[in-house]
Amino acid sequence: MTELEFVLPADIERRSFEIIDSELGEIEISEKNKPIVMRCIHTTADFDYAYNLCFSENAVDCALNILRSGCVIVTDTNMALAGINKIALKKLGCKAICFMAEPEAAKLAENRGITRAAASVELAAQIEKPVIYVVGNAPTALVALYDHMKNGSFMPDFIIGMPVGFVNVVQSKELIMNSNANYIVAKGRKGGSNVAAAVCNGLMYMLTR
Amino acid sequence: MTELEFVLPADIERRSFEIIDSELGEIEISEKNKPIVMRCIHTTADFDYAYNLCFSENAVDCALNILRSGCVIVTDTNMALAGINKIALKKLGCKAICFMAEPEAAKLAENRGITRAAASVELAAQIEKPVIYVVGNAPTALVALYDHMKNGSFMPDFIIGMPVGFVNVVQSKELIMNSNANYIVAKGRKGGSNVAAAVCNGLMYMLTR
Repeated sequence: MTELEFVLPADIERRSFEIIDSELGEIEISEKNKPIVMRCIHTTADFDYAYNLCFSENAVDCALNILRSGCVIVTDTNMALAGINKIALKKLGCKAICFMAEPEAAKLAENRGITRAAASVELAAQIEKPVIYVVGNAPTALVALYDHMKNGSFMPDFIIGMPVGFVNVVQSKELIMNSNANYIVAKGRKGGSNVAAAVCNGLMYMLTR
Repeated sequence: MTELEFVLPADIERRSFEIIDSELGEIEISEKNKPIVMRCIHTTADFDYAYNLCFSENAVDCALNILRSGCVIVTDTNMALAGINKIALKKLGCKAICFMAEPEAAKLAENRGITRAAASVELAAQIEKPVIYVVGNAPTALVALYDHMKNGSFMPDFIIGMPVGFVNVVQSKELIMNSNANYIVAKGRKGGSNVAAAVCNGLMYMLTR
């Protein structure tokens, strides 16, 4: 059996990133996007994220400006919300919320005959601060965002589009990548609440660490 | 662009599992373990889980018996806790907790010069009901569990060992697989809080759906 390596807890993340960087080798990733790619790999141990992450033009700079402005991060799952670093949020004067388990989302969904994921987008549209919309689960959330953008009723300042799965996930991400939105999207089936939170954290750490 | 497929929200999971099953094809997985394997793939869209999940002898039956007895599920992250289905928990009369953000874990860690993950294991050792210990992040939690088992101070009834990462993760899982514990472990670097929660949910759904 391989021996346990003695690494101080504080050094584990640095050491992990060294290993990821060395295994990425010669794969071409822009310097700006690389911390985000590496954080997704750090969260999943899945090197597919070196290939499937797609960034709109100047996505990282755009997201950092929004974070600097004290935005609201809206997530589509409580799990993604749980994964977002609260210390970094506080340092930036940002706030993160998830409407999915809120009674108002359930009520709105019932009244309008829409999914709770779509109702959450309606609720986010009423937020007055800049919004980063983070999707780790529901392709219907991306579809709802796309519909809002198309009819001009809501344009989130940034979309982190990481639903995972086998039904409508690929297509919902294509909708966002073909829109005018600022985005980071994991092309294909992969993603998840953990990856969505990792992208948020990766962006915030660029400003707070 | 691929058209969005019209699938009723209630049918998405069933349809996803059909796709996963068909893509798994001829890969040999025992009928007992297959729902767990499929749920991990459903959560990650990563078919590596068809190969890396390791089960101790009669692991699934063992876990189901523990769940039936009204156990306590202890997680090493609030994110895994957030991902565990609360309706299924309630139906089974089980409860899930995470000590990581509790002041008592921080205090114990400081007093004893151990990580909070290890302190959480100490706190779990004081639980009087059967315990399923769920690790989605910290290899040190698995190492602490191993040390307790070795010196006889705590034997969790079941371990779901899914830490993810690059430093001591592989080794910590080997410790558990070479112990007397009842376990489900994702061999290698992969895992995560989402996968850990998926395994819990997969087991609970076998009894509640």
